[in-house]
Amino acid sequence: MRARSHWGWGYADRFPDAEGQAALAAQVGQVLGLPAGALARPVPLDHVAVPTPRVDVPASLGVPCARDPATRARHTYGRSFPDQVRAFGGDFAPAPDAVARPRDEREVEALLEWASGAGVALVPFGGGTSVVGGVECDGARHAGVVTLDLGALNAVLEVDDVSRLARIQAGALGPAIEAGLAPHGLTLRHFPQSFEFSTLGGWIATRAGGHFATLYTHIDDLVAGLRMITPGAGVYATRRLPGSGAGPSPDRLALGSEGTLGVITEAWMRVRPRPRWRASVAAHFTDFEAAVAATRALAQSGLYPSNCRLLDRREAALNQVAFDGTDVLLVGFESADHPLDAPMRRAVELLRDHGGALPRPPTLRDAGAAGRDATAGQWRAAFLDAPYLQSTLLSLGYVVDTFETACTWQDFPALHAEIVDRVRGAMKAHCGGGRLSLRFTHVYPDGPAPYYTFIAPGADLPPGADRRYAQLERWAAVKRAASEALIAHGATITHHHAVGRVHRPWYDRQRSGAFAAALRGAKDALDPAGVMNPGVLLDPA
Amino acid sequence: MRARSHWGWGYADRFPDAEGQAALAAQVGQVLGLPAGALARPVPLDHVAVPTPRVDVPASLGVPCARDPATRARHTYGRSFPDQVRAFGGDFAPAPDAVARPRDEREVEALLEWASGAGVALVPFGGGTSVVGGVECDGARHAGVVTLDLGALNAVLEVDDVSRLARIQAGALGPAIEAGLAPHGLTLRHFPQSFEFSTLGGWIATRAGGHFATLYTHIDDLVAGLRMITPGAGVYATRRLPGSGAGPSPDRLALGSEGTLGVITEAWMRVRPRPRWRASVAAHFTDFEAAVAATRALAQSGLYPSNCRLLDRREAALNQVAFDGTDVLLVGFESADHPLDAPMRRAVELLRDHGGALPRPPTLRDAGAAGRDATAGQWRAAFLDAPYLQSTLLSLGYVVDTFETACTWQDFPALHAEIVDRVRGAMKAHCGGGRLSLRFTHVYPDGPAPYYTFIAPGADLPPGADRRYAQLERWAAVKRAASEALIAHGATITHHHAVGRVHRPWYDRQRSGAFAAALRGAKDALDPAGVMNPGVLLDPA
Repeated sequence: MRARSHWGWGYADRFPDAEGQAALAAQVGQVLGLPAGALARPVPLDHVAVPTPRVDVPASLGVPCARDPATRARHTYGRSFPDQVRAFGGDFAPAPDAVARPRDEREVEALLEWASGAGVALVPFGGGTSVVGGVECDGARHAGVVTLDLGALNAVLEVDDVSRLARIQAGALGPAIEAGLAPHGLTLRHFPQSFEFSTLGGWIATRAGGHFATLYTHIDDLVAGLRMITPGAGVYATRRLPGSGAGPSPDRLALGSEGTLGVITEAWMRVRPRPRWRASVAAHFTDFEAAVAATRALAQSGLYPSNCRLLDRREAALNQVAFDGTDVLLVGFESADHPLDAPMRRAVELLRDHGGALPRPPTLRDAGAAGRDATAGQWRAAFLDAPYLQSTLLSLGYVVDTFETACTWQDFPALHAEIVDRVRGAMKAHCGGGRLSLRFTHVYPDGPAPYYTFIAPGADLPPGADRRYAQLERWAAVKRAASEALIAHGATITHHHAVGRVHRPWYDRQRSGAFAAALRGAKDALDPAGVMNPGVLLDPA
Repeated sequence: MRARSHWGWGYADRFPDAEGQAALAAQVGQVLGLPAGALARPVPLDHVAVPTPRVDVPASLGVPCARDPATRARHTYGRSFPDQVRAFGGDFAPAPDAVARPRDEREVEALLEWASGAGVALVPFGGGTSVVGGVECDGARHAGVVTLDLGALNAVLEVDDVSRLARIQAGALGPAIEAGLAPHGLTLRHFPQSFEFSTLGGWIATRAGGHFATLYTHIDDLVAGLRMITPGAGVYATRRLPGSGAGPSPDRLALGSEGTLGVITEAWMRVRPRPRWRASVAAHFTDFEAAVAATRALAQSGLYPSNCRLLDRREAALNQVAFDGTDVLLVGFESADHPLDAPMRRAVELLRDHGGALPRPPTLRDAGAAGRDATAGQWRAAFLDAPYLQSTLLSLGYVVDTFETACTWQDFPALHAEIVDRVRGAMKAHCGGGRLSLRFTHVYPDGPAPYYTFIAPGADLPPGADRRYAQLERWAAVKRAASEALIAHGATITHHHAVGRVHRPWYDRQRSGAFAAALRGAKDALDPAGVMNPGVLLDPA
């Protein structure tokens, strides 16, 4: 099996050798004018130390459990910037005491019962790709911390071809889900950037955003029913239903619960046939406001394009989609049922009406036909490579991350101006400069989901171990500037990256005290001992 | 102002005189073979008695408040079958002690604070159209019952044309909302059957279903943010956002809360321009299974028709859509942005592929053009008249009502068979016979929302006041049979009529104990004194 990196994104073999690092450093220095710091290599996994465990899971529970340093280290962090920086430097101080890997719901229940009695914090762990500190637990208030790895619950259990539904276990990774559905000619078509390394349960617990830009793309809309094991109130099971008006939606309380209410074990998911027809086009704009207006027109047209991603000129250049200083709007449609000439024709009209230039006519493809639109293809490759790039860049001392939000179309210009102002200001003040770019990942009739990427130089960082602290401090300053701007402007602190521990201070200001009280009431009922992922969404009791 | 009926649906003047009643009785007797009971007239409002009030709202609160018998009687019931039968007969025993009509949020807060301290139950009241006992409160465990009528909070406060959002007060009735939006060329396009007489707050509190058969039609999907005043935790305010992944959705906990968590005062709603293009067609089927398959094909096509209503042959005849014994599928599209030739062409292909006959070619219209498809128009008129018809029929002794659900496509045939079996059996056993018909009001890729209408004869009922009790008993027996079938087959007890007090026993079996515990925890945090609409969703504490 191809080895996962113990510190960075994805597969270990994707991290370049020293030569590759140096080449990237030279390229970024030249293209962006941002000099790299000294080249560094990660502390190998067999050199890292983890604290002496405080507790162990009793063997009498019969749940497979590991307490070796390597497994504990591998379950210490997600893949946020600070997670990667610390892991790169060999710092695994917050490692859990043990990693349990239940094989069925009964074993999950046994763990929850034991942990509740013993006062041990439990951290549900899917693919470990959280970028918001979702799986790193401070066990200070608990007798210990045990990570509950869902990896053994990874099957597609049942497929209902008639209703286009599939019952899937929470620990299944994206590719395993697609492999299980493929023999039925079906697909979940939920492709977050983390797709290869994240799980269904993780997507549900964090309200993951899918790959479609419009319509039913969030995991929220794809859940027809689910099961969640709670420590205090047994199985939280919801009926597999296409719709219901019976009280507040139980599914929607589990969605976004981030492991604080219980352990999601499986769900009935809405699936669909593989698309046969596809259409795509790229429109270039010399005026950013016009590009935004075109995007809004498409979002409000009722055409519901599957792709409707606006890349600003910086993002377009970084992703090698355009080098002429234009903002690029990528528009695509797909269908398993019908050709897409009509919606694409109307989309092209809207794009042109708003000043978009189309260097190439739209590509309209039927299943058998080869080839993709070159611009869209380039974008897709860059999309999947981006997290690897972040890992390599941070190894060169850069402070590099993304953050995302959602706001109304009316609020967007002022919000964007303030973000640019604050984030550039923070990069200048703390890092001596940096680049900020923007794309829209999703668009709604009432507003976009802006997604920002920032990168600041690392040349002046101190050498050796101190660089880690400097990188973390700089990152925190920029992240704080971005988050303050979001909360001050009425936007959300996260559109699809979740809250975790990183976003808590701003999440607490975003939600009303009344909702916090209601959530606390629900948690106390389901998790009376307060052992489920403490510190996430709510303070430990 | 046109007077509302004090017992039946809608406007008082829509209830026919004795001659009109007799004509209807003759018609139903002839067409359906179901003889009417003796013709009866409602007890006039000025003849009805209400109990002596137990409490009054202190004048010091400064909240306008009525305690006259007529106002109290008018706020006693919703418009369920048992509500109408009792009101028709002059039974207003469960009348509230007073009816408060706050003019702003401050007055709502004052009422909540007073009621919490005094142990008085508060029943939020929008349009009073609940068909599930949502506004009838048993005050036995409380010092009294005060109805909180939101009717004074009825304005469209703000419109954001750019983001297509409108801030609307909870007490606004459907027509007032549309009137407020019309000057902006916008519409909410949320047209439940109760549209004229129900309110935004009521729709949100009960998760109302809209008039579109697919896509964003439920009020759940139209709420961008809301405000709810809670007795225990202040204002439950959510941000106006197109999307968010920050924890479980606070909006979705308020949606469907049915007045048990607080009083919804306003919401930011997603609105849209009036449609310009429309297309419609009616397909006739001689085989019901083929009609269901055609409906499923459309629901799964990704065409998202705005209308996709299957009427079985009985329903088609009752609504004067077809008299030849065919099942009829009404399909429509609408758009403010583009012509609809392409989706209609594909819809027609799908209909024909499944054996549908199209007596008339599709109608494709641009805004200016006059005329509607005759079949669809006939259906629309019948749709809005149906609740009036129910009121008149019950005045003739019939037991007549509707119930709705949602289930997967795979489960539908068995569920339908069991419903037909149980409901016909109950009508035969308790009423000596009756008719049951079906339509789909909404369709999803994973299943339909079947909506049933039943009518049983009243000829053999005892005369005078005893008839009321007999009607109620018979209704309860049929309703019980229907509800048992739904719950036994994994369906939902309600797709868009809410839970109220009528559906409680089956709702309790539908949800897991864990969700009930979580909801109880949330309620205890927001409404610690347990005064908000007690008995709905949860038992009084």
